[in-house]
Amino acid sequence: MSESASVTCTAPVNIAIIKYWGKRDVERNLPTNGSISVTLSQKALRTTTSVHLSPEHPADRLWLNGKEDANASRAGTRLAKVFDLIRRLARQEGNPRAEWHAHVASHNSFPTAAGLASSASGFACLAFSLAKAYGLQAGNDVLSGIARQGSGSACRSLFGGYVAWEHGYEEAASPEDEDFGSHAVQLADEGHWPEMAIFVHIVSAEKKTVSSTSGMQTTVRTSPLHTYRAAHVVPARMEAMRQAIAARDFDAFAKLTMEDSNQFHATCLDTYPPIFYLNDTSRDLIQLVHRFNEQQGAIMAAYTYDAGPNAVVYIKREACRAWLDAVAALYRPANGLRANGDAWFSDAHDEVLPAWAAADYAPANPAATAELVAPFQAAPGAVDGLLFSLPGGGPEVIADPEASLLDAAGMPKTLAN
Amino acid sequence: MSESASVTCTAPVNIAIIKYWGKRDVERNLPTNGSISVTLSQKALRTTTSVHLSPEHPADRLWLNGKEDANASRAGTRLAKVFDLIRRLARQEGNPRAEWHAHVASHNSFPTAAGLASSASGFACLAFSLAKAYGLQAGNDVLSGIARQGSGSACRSLFGGYVAWEHGYEEAASPEDEDFGSHAVQLADEGHWPEMAIFVHIVSAEKKTVSSTSGMQTTVRTSPLHTYRAAHVVPARMEAMRQAIAARDFDAFAKLTMEDSNQFHATCLDTYPPIFYLNDTSRDLIQLVHRFNEQQGAIMAAYTYDAGPNAVVYIKREACRAWLDAVAALYRPANGLRANGDAWFSDAHDEVLPAWAAADYAPANPAATAELVAPFQAAPGAVDGLLFSLPGGGPEVIADPEASLLDAAGMPKTLAN
Repeated sequence: MSESASVTCTAPVNIAIIKYWGKRDVERNLPTNGSISVTLSQKALRTTTSVHLSPEHPADRLWLNGKEDANASRAGTRLAKVFDLIRRLARQEGNPRAEWHAHVASHNSFPTAAGLASSASGFACLAFSLAKAYGLQAGNDVLSGIARQGSGSACRSLFGGYVAWEHGYEEAASPEDEDFGSHAVQLADEGHWPEMAIFVHIVSAEKKTVSSTSGMQTTVRTSPLHTYRAAHVVPARMEAMRQAIAARDFDAFAKLTMEDSNQFHATCLDTYPPIFYLNDTSRDLIQLVHRFNEQQGAIMAAYTYDAGPNAVVYIKREACRAWLDAVAALYRPANGLRANGDAWFSDAHDEVLPAWAAADYAPANPAATAELVAPFQAAPGAVDGLLFSLPGGGPEVIADPEASLLDAAGMPKTLAN
Repeated sequence: MSESASVTCTAPVNIAIIKYWGKRDVERNLPTNGSISVTLSQKALRTTTSVHLSPEHPADRLWLNGKEDANASRAGTRLAKVFDLIRRLARQEGNPRAEWHAHVASHNSFPTAAGLASSASGFACLAFSLAKAYGLQAGNDVLSGIARQGSGSACRSLFGGYVAWEHGYEEAASPEDEDFGSHAVQLADEGHWPEMAIFVHIVSAEKKTVSSTSGMQTTVRTSPLHTYRAAHVVPARMEAMRQAIAARDFDAFAKLTMEDSNQFHATCLDTYPPIFYLNDTSRDLIQLVHRFNEQQGAIMAAYTYDAGPNAVVYIKREACRAWLDAVAALYRPANGLRANGDAWFSDAHDEVLPAWAAADYAPANPAATAELVAPFQAAPGAVDGLLFSLPGGGPEVIADPEASLLDAAGMPKTLAN
């Protein structure tokens, strides 16, 4: 009987509230500025990854959503770098599996065309599940620094709750140092702030956009405002956001989140040629949030946008129904919005998403909703998917061996057609 | 027979290529940064103003487009300030009319709902025509500093061609100094750069926007990027733009113009709450210009946007037809676009706008046009007006007394219904 090791893990998506954009070191994926994110629940948005190690595998192989990606065994790629760094750690820890190769199958649960970055949960899950398979002792902070080399924002998906990705230092601590102090740390866990809830609005985007990998380096090269932001604005915001989270100060959290989202997109616009991720629906949702807060008489909600038109709204749980009513009034198609299946609802308040899913959905306070949405043009379907989440936990090991995406020989159980 | 003095003048619109946004002194309308503009031809876009002075007028009165504006005689308003500064100059010059009051009628030729700022040509025309009526010796630079107090960008409409509005100094030169060195100077006249042409695209905007007067001070107060831009980015761009104009370097002119438009709108987005002036059509036109330049193999066109969705495109004359073909392919309604009457065409190349106006309009090179517009969605009517202009001259005195908007008694010949 040949030796082998097998493990299956899941990892979450995270949504930045102080934005990462641009690298000061492209080779090592070191960011121009620190960032902070909130980890979403894995109930609907997660990556599942199975790893099978064997001394008989002649090379690393990886299947993503059932389709093989040759980059795992191609020297110099980001994927190969993660494999190599994990094995280097295993070697340093004196682990006998350190010379084995890995077969990896990975799957994203994301709703079709959700436009949500899959590289964050994907590379986090890869680093975490490889570490488990190789039996590493290293903590998640170390794994986070390795995931970062695969995809920057992946480093934040090694932790649940509220997570900071540290800018790190400028000089390597040793010739072998690949971390530069630039990895994620947990600021607070997912249970820290009970009033916090999250809506993800999937906004239709017919137009092509710029990939973030190429876009961010164009910004670094051409935007004077980005240079100033990274050096002078973000460091103060990082500190203010840490304090807002520690104190559960929603006003400060929300205002910083909105300001930072807007400033990130401002630097995209200041790029030459300019990069556009927000469309007219995104802009209406931004203005709707400001108007919503005015109507509520307090800051109850905050939007943030990554490199796409999808609106993520952090919101106090008590305001969820009023917000949902407004979004329904403007964007809900006659047949209701997609909401990613019943499983997703288990995270929701009973009073929120079951109501949305019902055919006879009606606002709780029709007059207030009508007044709120009056300046906007209804566009049913312009928001064509809506997800509800609470802050969620970090990567997990799935104990059930039946959950593996690989068979006993380390080959994928299913392949993409 | 009673004494009186009567004069009629016209003044042009100008479009900034280095943008003004925000005041360092609201009282005096002193800008946070200098700016540079190009004056448009007055053939279609102009303000006409008639002034009638008489010792028998008990107060200043002003009719704008036939409707009286009470601000002319209301102490402390911007209008009253312009009247007072002109009379102060008249007094300093020992002019016997210095104590007379003025009746003023003013009319804008602008196409309905063009969304083009009327305050620039309006206050420029007011300062210029009052100066002529009072018989002032002061030059246009001095009048420019007075027009600035009515509306910032008006100071640039005192000159034709390429015009810089100087930032000015921080301390008044004397207790009476209202100018602070902040007025316009001509960099080059309208004949300086024969290859330069201009298209104004009137973009439909159904949504409400923020008025520039209130919006710009919110930006000054809340946008860290604006503060940096005004102090550190604009001064270098002012100098680079002066050089580009002097050297007729279209590449440098166009790149600076596009970068500065984008950076201005970036600071609007960095405002809290954010200010949006560009819509999806504006953004498509921006991307169309970049794609157009790529297809042409050289920078032939540059967009700029003021506080609204209208695209102004500075373009080499030789590229006008190809650009018009692209705009027609995407935006021309079946019945052709409004183009502001035949008079406007007299400024155009024969091969350009008459073709556009024809019912059987067709692109000169259908394959090239089709390739250019392929990534964009056609939206007939989203550009619902198109103006063609060359750089134009400064304010003019109209010699024909029949052209006056006021009768012999100084009352408007026509009033608004």
